[in-house]
Amino acid sequence: MYSVNVRDHFMIAHSFTGEAFGPAQRLHGATYVVDATFRRRELDADGVVVDIALAGAQLGAVLAGMNYQNLDDHPDFEGRNTTTEFLAREIHQRLADAIQRGKLGPSASGIDALCVTLHESHVAWASFEGPL
Amino acid sequence: MYSVNVRDHFMIAHSFTGEAFGPAQRLHGATYVVDATFRRRELDADGVVVDIALAGAQLGAVLAGMNYQNLDDHPDFEGRNTTTEFLAREIHQRLADAIQRGKLGPSASGIDALCVTLHESHVAWASFEGPL
Amino acid sequence: MYSVNVRDHFMIAHSFTGEAFGPAQRLHGATYVVDATFRRRELDADGVVVDIALAGAQLGAVLAGMNYQNLDDHPDFEGRNTTTEFLAREIHQRLADAIQRGKLGPSASGIDALCVTLHESHVAWASFEGPL
Amino acid sequence: MYSVNVRDHFMIAHSFTGEAFGPAQRLHGATYVVDATFRRRELDADGVVVDIALAGAQLGAVLAGMNYQNLDDHPDFEGRNTTTEFLAREIHQRLADAIQRGKLGPSASGIDALCVTLHESHVAWASFEGPL
Amino acid sequence: MYSVNVRDHFMIAHSFTGEAFGPAQRLHGATYVVDATFRRRELDADGVVVDIALAGAQLGAVLAGMNYQNLDDHPDFEGRNTTTEFLAREIHQRLADAIQRGKLGPSASGIDALCVTLHESHVAWASFEGPL
Amino acid sequence: MYSVNVRDHFMIAHSFTGEAFGPAQRLHGATYVVDATFRRRELDADGVVVDIALAGAQLGAVLAGMNYQNLDDHPDFEGRNTTTEFLAREIHQRLADAIQRGKLGPSASGIDALCVTLHESHVAWASFEGPL
Repeated sequence: MYSVNVRDHFMIAHSFTGEAFGPAQRLHGATYVVDATFRRRELDADGVVVDIALAGAQLGAVLAGMNYQNLDDHPDFEGRNTTTEFLAREIHQRLADAIQRGKLGPSASGIDALCVTLHESHVAWASFEGPL
Repeated sequence: MYSVNVRDHFMIAHSFTGEAFGPAQRLHGATYVVDATFRRRELDADGVVVDIALAGAQLGAVLAGMNYQNLDDHPDFEGRNTTTEFLAREIHQRLADAIQRGKLGPSASGIDALCVTLHESHVAWASFEGPL
Repeated sequence: MYSVNVRDHFMIAHSFTGEAFGPAQRLHGATYVVDATFRRRELDADGVVVDIALAGAQLGAVLAGMNYQNLDDHPDFEGRNTTTEFLAREIHQRLADAIQRGKLGPSASGIDALCVTLHESHVAWASFEGPL
Repeated sequence: MYSVNVRDHFMIAHSFTGEAFGPAQRLHGATYVVDATFRRRELDADGVVVDIALAGAQLGAVLAGMNYQNLDDHPDFEGRNTTTEFLAREIHQRLADAIQRGKLGPSASGIDALCVTLHESHVAWASFEGPL
Repeated sequence: MYSVNVRDHFMIAHSFTGEAFGPAQRLHGATYVVDATFRRRELDADGVVVDIALAGAQLGAVLAGMNYQNLDDHPDFEGRNTTTEFLAREIHQRLADAIQRGKLGPSASGIDALCVTLHESHVAWASFEGPL
Repeated sequence: MYSVNVRDHFMIAHSFTGEAFGPAQRLHGATYVVDATFRRRELDADGVVVDIALAGAQLGAVLAGMNYQNLDDHPDFEGRNTTTEFLAREIHQRLADAIQRGKLGPSASGIDALCVTLHESHVAWASFEGPL
């Protein structure tokens, strides 16, 4: 299995609902450094997993929809706890949609799986991996 | 599959028995920077893989049992070569036990797998991954 | 010159006032991974720059005063833009005060300088360095 | 599953053929920081995945065959686009061959899988993983 | 003294003249991950060292002039060994020129010093620091 | 001022004398990832700060004298607490001696300063910087 990874980041405010979250129930924020890892069993005709320039551009476009925002007020996340795990899956879904809409080029339809990892500090990260 | 990772470290002395280990047969030591990666197919009711505060606390508790020690004299490791691989599995087992004893909270029983990685330098690491 | 560094992190929400800040005028947030670097010309009687356990504990105590908060509502920062540069100096000042109050032990009075660095992403950081 | 990783690097020039590569069609170059991750279900008689000294030496030997070269002129890569993905598989094959020839010691025949990752910058990497 | 750092990268081919360079006399290449660290004694009216968006954009513009090129054929470097040290100073000079031409905004004239660091692998880097 | 850095590591056991060291009074150990940063005002005739191959080789030679050892039994450190700070200066002195004996080549006599940094974990490091 081949993999290719691109990295970018976004910075948001949010708060969590539920006693389990302790001090994170207060409005706070995070920088998320995001790795999008595209996987495929065989390389495409150009000898790559994905056009890395398009992959980086689409990751940037997906993150731009959340960057410099308070996710508590974001219409897409109403009534949701935007935990790191939840956001990893959300970005996974948005990149999967971009692939389906052809935004990563025609050969991207051959991508087998995608893993999205959000690093929230030097000691903690979360990811979601699933097939496409 | 969702994953959540917490990181901590411990510092130990040890030596290895067997010619295959060359200079590492001498008493020496290591800093191990440890990543504990918890995986589950579906998030729990709080929308997380694991209570990250409890996960970090339990990783710290497990490492405290070895930190600042000479593993050659540690009763748990008598007659064993405490290679990085061996220690990764040992910590995996101890975290699995902590989960079973409820130390990571009730929903942690839904964790599907755990990977423990020990970074021993900027160029070498070892890990053990297994189901729970 | 000797230096010793300890690292910790905190997660906050804030917004900036002024057109120069563009999208960062909106309420957003950041994870700051903080390095506190203590410097002295000669080691103390124990052969160290600072008691590293006390240094880590005081850094943690200083960051706890801001962690999981919206700095826009924090009484200490009323009417201030809490830029990364500003926060680096603020933490520098608070650690300098802790040293003066003896929180890092009596020999810490011999520390000559302190540098505080806040990493806000994998591509950007800011610091403040000054004598004590 | 146990894993052990060793890291090294090499520096090459190359160019790519095909409009999809944009400016990378020009002669340019890269530093590749390479991780070779060896995996096995059970440890060998010495309690390790692989003799880490032999693993590091063989990774170094494989990379030496490409280091400080223009891959466009390398006889092994004639008419090929030496993309990061392609090079990851190539190094995977060469390490697999070294294992088969006994260069990593007799117990290395028990290695189940190998992943080779090439980091080309702080934001991009590619890998190839496959069974042995 | 305050500092702010922005990071970017470029990928080039080159070769060195002189027996001292050993195998690096052959045409090879490198990824350079570049840190540009701006320093000033006092913050500007906005409470920053430099407009970080402009700083990042100008670093990108300077690197674009060398990215995906064979520096042996670059008119600016004719007859020069483009060592990492040399390139660090070259980028320092180009950023200093950009500041003088107002590309980082009017308040950037108050920047006191600039350090440019080129990371060429996980084990080697070079930098040039000088006043502005 | 130009700087060039090379990185390597060593792994040792040791213990500290004195109540201030708490649990580190017990025999334990550490991996030290070492950065040796050579500085000079002007580049040498080859356009470099130092022959990086010689610098790396000499750093390796210096570390080999301590690697895989119990520093408590090392004749050079009898009666000394081998703190990270102390070891940073010790390695600084040994590299300075190597420069004086010509081990880094004749032009290394023009090196102005040297900084040696020992990273002992992902959250702590110490360094010693001084003129040559």
